[in-house]
Amino acid sequence: MLPRGRSRALGAAALLLLLLLLGFLLFDWRLRGAAALDGDPLAGPRDRNPSDCGPRPPPPPPKCELLHVAIVCAGHNSSRDVITLVKSMLFYRKNPLHLHLVTDAVARNILEMLFRTWMVPAVRVSFYDADELKSQVSWIPNKHYSGLYGLMKLVLPGTLPAELARVIVLDTDITFASDIAELWALFTHFSDTQAIGLVENQSDWYLGNLWKNHRPWPALGRGFNTGVILLRLDRLRQAGWEQMWRLMARRELLTLPATSLADQDIFNAVIKEHPGLVHPLPCVWNVQLSDHTLAERCYSEASDLKVIHWNSPKKLRVKNKHVEFFRNFYLTFLEYDGNLLRRGLFGCPSQPASGAEQLQQALEQLDEEDPCFEFRQQQLTVHRVHVTFLPHEPSPSRPHDVTLVAQLSMDRLQMLEALCRHWPGPMSLALYLTDAEAQQFLRFIEASPVLAARQDVAYHVVYREGPLYPVNQLRNVALAQALTPYVFLSDIDFLPAYSLYDYLRASIEQLGLGSRRKAALVVPAFETLHYRFSFPRSKVELLALLDAGALYTFRYHEWPRGHAPTDYARWREAQAPYGVQWVADYEPYVVVPRDCPRYDPRFVGFGWNKVAHIVELDAQEYEFLVLPEAFTIHLPHAPSLDISHFRSSPTYRGCLQALKDEFHQDLSRHYGAAALKYLPALQQPWSPARG
Amino acid sequence: MLPRGRSRALGAAALLLLLLLLGFLLFDWRLRGAAALDGDPLAGPRDRNPSDCGPRPPPPPPKCELLHVAIVCAGHNSSRDVITLVKSMLFYRKNPLHLHLVTDAVARNILEMLFRTWMVPAVRVSFYDADELKSQVSWIPNKHYSGLYGLMKLVLPGTLPAELARVIVLDTDITFASDIAELWALFTHFSDTQAIGLVENQSDWYLGNLWKNHRPWPALGRGFNTGVILLRLDRLRQAGWEQMWRLMARRELLTLPATSLADQDIFNAVIKEHPGLVHPLPCVWNVQLSDHTLAERCYSEASDLKVIHWNSPKKLRVKNKHVEFFRNFYLTFLEYDGNLLRRGLFGCPSQPASGAEQLQQALEQLDEEDPCFEFRQQQLTVHRVHVTFLPHEPSPSRPHDVTLVAQLSMDRLQMLEALCRHWPGPMSLALYLTDAEAQQFLRFIEASPVLAARQDVAYHVVYREGPLYPVNQLRNVALAQALTPYVFLSDIDFLPAYSLYDYLRASIEQLGLGSRRKAALVVPAFETLHYRFSFPRSKVELLALLDAGALYTFRYHEWPRGHAPTDYARWREAQAPYGVQWVADYEPYVVVPRDCPRYDPRFVGFGWNKVAHIVELDAQEYEFLVLPEAFTIHLPHAPSLDISHFRSSPTYRGCLQALKDEFHQDLSRHYGAAALKYLPALQQPWSPARG
Repeated sequence: MLPRGRSRALGAAALLLLLLLLGFLLFDWRLRGAAALDGDPLAGPRDRNPSDCGPRPPPPPPKCELLHVAIVCAGHNSSRDVITLVKSMLFYRKNPLHLHLVTDAVARNILEMLFRTWMVPAVRVSFYDADELKSQVSWIPNKHYSGLYGLMKLVLPGTLPAELARVIVLDTDITFASDIAELWALFTHFSDTQAIGLVENQSDWYLGNLWKNHRPWPALGRGFNTGVILLRLDRLRQAGWEQMWRLMARRELLTLPATSLADQDIFNAVIKEHPGLVHPLPCVWNVQLSDHTLAERCYSEASDLKVIHWNSPKKLRVKNKHVEFFRNFYLTFLEYDGNLLRRGLFGCPSQPASGAEQLQQALEQLDEEDPCFEFRQQQLTVHRVHVTFLPHEPSPSRPHDVTLVAQLSMDRLQMLEALCRHWPGPMSLALYLTDAEAQQFLRFIEASPVLAARQDVAYHVVYREGPLYPVNQLRNVALAQALTPYVFLSDIDFLPAYSLYDYLRASIEQLGLGSRRKAALVVPAFETLHYRFSFPRSKVELLALLDAGALYTFRYHEWPRGHAPTDYARWREAQAPYGVQWVADYEPYVVVPRDCPRYDPRFVGFGWNKVAHIVELDAQEYEFLVLPEAFTIHLPHAPSLDISHFRSSPTYRGCLQALKDEFHQDLSRHYGAAALKYLPALQQPWSPARG
Repeated sequence: MLPRGRSRALGAAALLLLLLLLGFLLFDWRLRGAAALDGDPLAGPRDRNPSDCGPRPPPPPPKCELLHVAIVCAGHNSSRDVITLVKSMLFYRKNPLHLHLVTDAVARNILEMLFRTWMVPAVRVSFYDADELKSQVSWIPNKHYSGLYGLMKLVLPGTLPAELARVIVLDTDITFASDIAELWALFTHFSDTQAIGLVENQSDWYLGNLWKNHRPWPALGRGFNTGVILLRLDRLRQAGWEQMWRLMARRELLTLPATSLADQDIFNAVIKEHPGLVHPLPCVWNVQLSDHTLAERCYSEASDLKVIHWNSPKKLRVKNKHVEFFRNFYLTFLEYDGNLLRRGLFGCPSQPASGAEQLQQALEQLDEEDPCFEFRQQQLTVHRVHVTFLPHEPSPSRPHDVTLVAQLSMDRLQMLEALCRHWPGPMSLALYLTDAEAQQFLRFIEASPVLAARQDVAYHVVYREGPLYPVNQLRNVALAQALTPYVFLSDIDFLPAYSLYDYLRASIEQLGLGSRRKAALVVPAFETLHYRFSFPRSKVELLALLDAGALYTFRYHEWPRGHAPTDYARWREAQAPYGVQWVADYEPYVVVPRDCPRYDPRFVGFGWNKVAHIVELDAQEYEFLVLPEAFTIHLPHAPSLDISHFRSSPTYRGCLQALKDEFHQDLSRHYGAAALKYLPALQQPWSPARG
């Protein structure tokens, strides 16, 4: 074995202790960027002379301690921002975290689903209803762009659980460049009476000399920035914080018309009056990137930076000497694959995220040698879901309203504009994207006047994971988010007749769907093989194109069985809706009530995903009614990558048969003998020509 | 201003010193995972009792010091691996780096281009020719999968510059989870005679008890792993390293048939004989993830990990309790956008990467308000280029050989299989991808038997950056990498006639291209608007399809001018090649010598990119010869995202006109009055129907 030399090591202990101390004083303090106890919080760590004030060692980050973080978040855009903040926090964290999110209904809907599906180990999330808190701050006039929500940090001591003593409060436009536990550790630097840890404001705003008659709220010197706050909630409650800030705000509002910087003005006014409350934090914990801020005085090298604060309305376009550096840092987390943050904290005992343990067990029980392993794995995968990724304003509810439901990935984005022109009603679309693609998608929408104008289209991002396209899981996400009583279950390559939206609502009313009849309205499907063609304005035009060979019934050449029961010959002549019977392989596009059966998520990749859903509708005794004036047309496209991969594979077909067998077993379990009807259809081998 | 309390801080100094020392002993030493001086290198930091041996403070990482790193890298796959290693290193580094790369010709070709185009500030790269070193190690029989290159670390002291005293040597399958400067700092722990810093081997291999008659090379105990080495080159040279290891290897090879673990066996044999040379490093600096390694004994929590070593042939599929964690870590860097690592080290004075400074200046001079700002920015962008991303084996050179040259992005991958069936010759393809997409592409190729079998197709990844598709920059990358005397300049949506490859070579020979004639051979282009069609096997079949309306001449409906000069009526009847004259807007697909003019990179996005190249050929007096039996057919596809964005924009067309004007100015400068010929063509407004 190796020479160990323990005796030598023991003998050198005294010398080492000395060296240790010396090395520590000279270097480590500098590297961690911690400020001296009461030093100028703006001074960079390298600007200070250690003899000016007692050097303060960076406190050790608390091992495995649960850290509490509070964030106020409202609306669609802030919900996106907060995720980037959380990603940066999770990337560096080594402690279990408890997030306290004060949210409006929109943000709660988004973030609840996101965290439930993200399943990050050792992260707990609690929600607090911002709307309930509004009355506590709505009396304060506020000019800041954050609006009413910008003031809510003031009421956190009364809102968070009474037993919670300490919390870090963050704005949504924060990016971590270090472990949050190092920030948490600064609580130990508080004196016995300090209750609010803050970084000095890195602009001259509170000096009141920015322009003539500039009258900011009162503050100590430059004042403090409230983008990052260490709150001793226990002490604030004890000190009567509620009265304190209200009193101060009322007093100032006698002479000032409104707050300019929301909560920050009031925090500063209170601190000016009670300076003993504040504990100044080293400036590296809130490097403020507004134009013309003094942030550059704070750090001298990249490793000094701990927390970056994009507190300018210009965000990434802010002017700063090192903005390229900061931007790259921000983009790192914006585009970071959030799935990679599901890694556990194996050094700390922690509860697995709800559901994560069973999932892990199920995944471990899979046999890697099973030829259908990829299918099994994909079926079990829980995809992170970010619903209403972009601002969404549902249109006022119309009677019998119908939402178009579809799913897509990046390679079909170019369908969206045409779809918007063809369907003026609400849409609920699931997009299968990576984190980086989601940003491309965002830019794509912003660059399109047609798409940017449509607030009634809800885009739900389902994050990619695994080799097979989870088509039915995507459909179910889009379906679950539809808000109207009816849904049109479409596919992204189809353009509906221009009149379809109005016609469907009229038909639903006339047919008395829902209350009187349980029916699926069939929208006959056609296809064009020509890439460029002029879309028919009416059924008459459509029939003319059909006769001219410019259009075909859908899958006429490859798989006519899929739509044969629609009976196109009858449709040609039909003046009124007519009923048709289910037949094996029927897969029409239908309009159904929103509470229809979900798609079977076991069908991943391609094949049988829609057919199985129609079987389910039939088993539940939905009537199939073909609408005489409805139509939708499939546009040609190159085969998707996934499909060309698998269509030709015998293994793939074998696995699909196994899925079908299992599907039928489940059908039998639910519907008993009635399910026998579907057995022949399920035993038929799958044709690779089908979609 | 704030109360400072300096006197209090000063007064508390003594207490602080004590606290500091205590805190340090208890926590910091644990967190940094540094091992004690001569402690058991395998023991995790938490397993040791601080009283066992003097605790050693982690040395401060050296501020701004230039760190040297040596890596041996050969072949296409290792070149990909080394980039992931470098990304992880750059992500955490805060020091300037000098990489010393010992490479074969393949790796040098790839990495030289990569680093030149990556332009990372404060990174210098030197290359050393591995082939010249072969003779120094080729006498050693080696059974390890790394082959001869696995032995080359032994000759580094003689290979690296004589003035270089210290270097960190890394295997390509290493991922950093911390700042490499912390590793470099461990040099200061070396005693006066130690020269090789190594982590103990985390398997029982060298204990020699793995199976009956298992006879490993001699080693101290478990021996050491050479995936991460701190080398004092100066001391090794002084100690006569060259003789030392050769002697040892010769001696052992008298009784052992070969090395099993390449250089590692020899390093261990030398160390067994000269234990004073080795400085054991803390095990966290080389956490070895083979199956059944003892790595888990090394770390107790994620923050302990410093360097992860994928030293199993199974790589990411290795069995390990925390493999999910490690895999996520690895994938983080595999898919990380390397462009984001171009951020500077603003704390250290450093030379900008060659060319980077001028580029930065040019970018800064752009006017953000210019409506063509995006064009200007895109033109200036230097894209990272990874040539021959996948293994590539050029086919033996045939006379008059022709390489098909094209470019594509992710949405056209599904064209590759068909293209391979139509073109049995060499291809050089540029792919415009993100780092994450490059991995998807890799999996796509591996999953396709057709593509995986083709070693004569070279794929060059150009990394995405900016909003416009840099079509001509991509074409130039693919063109520059073609190895045959002739190139067929095609586009990815075209499938050539099955016979085209043979026919072109025969034609080139017959026409005496190159030596006798400066000509561009025109391959007439057709298109199908039907997505499914049966590809004509001959000119006769093609003409029949044309007459039946199943095929058209290319862009017949939208822009016949682009190919009109090819004279399809004449081609129908032609039995021999015929010359045609350049006319405005002509943009045929041509076969030219490899040294033809490059495409003009100013044309980014869509429009005029090919037309300008044909103008250039005409200006350089290339003869245009239409081949009577050649044809290529364009398949329909949805418009790419980029094109649908811009086709309709008047700004876009305005910018294109500006580019054309500048192009003509340059033409006039080069060709004088002869360029007047092209003026009318350049002043014509661009039609949005064109590609």
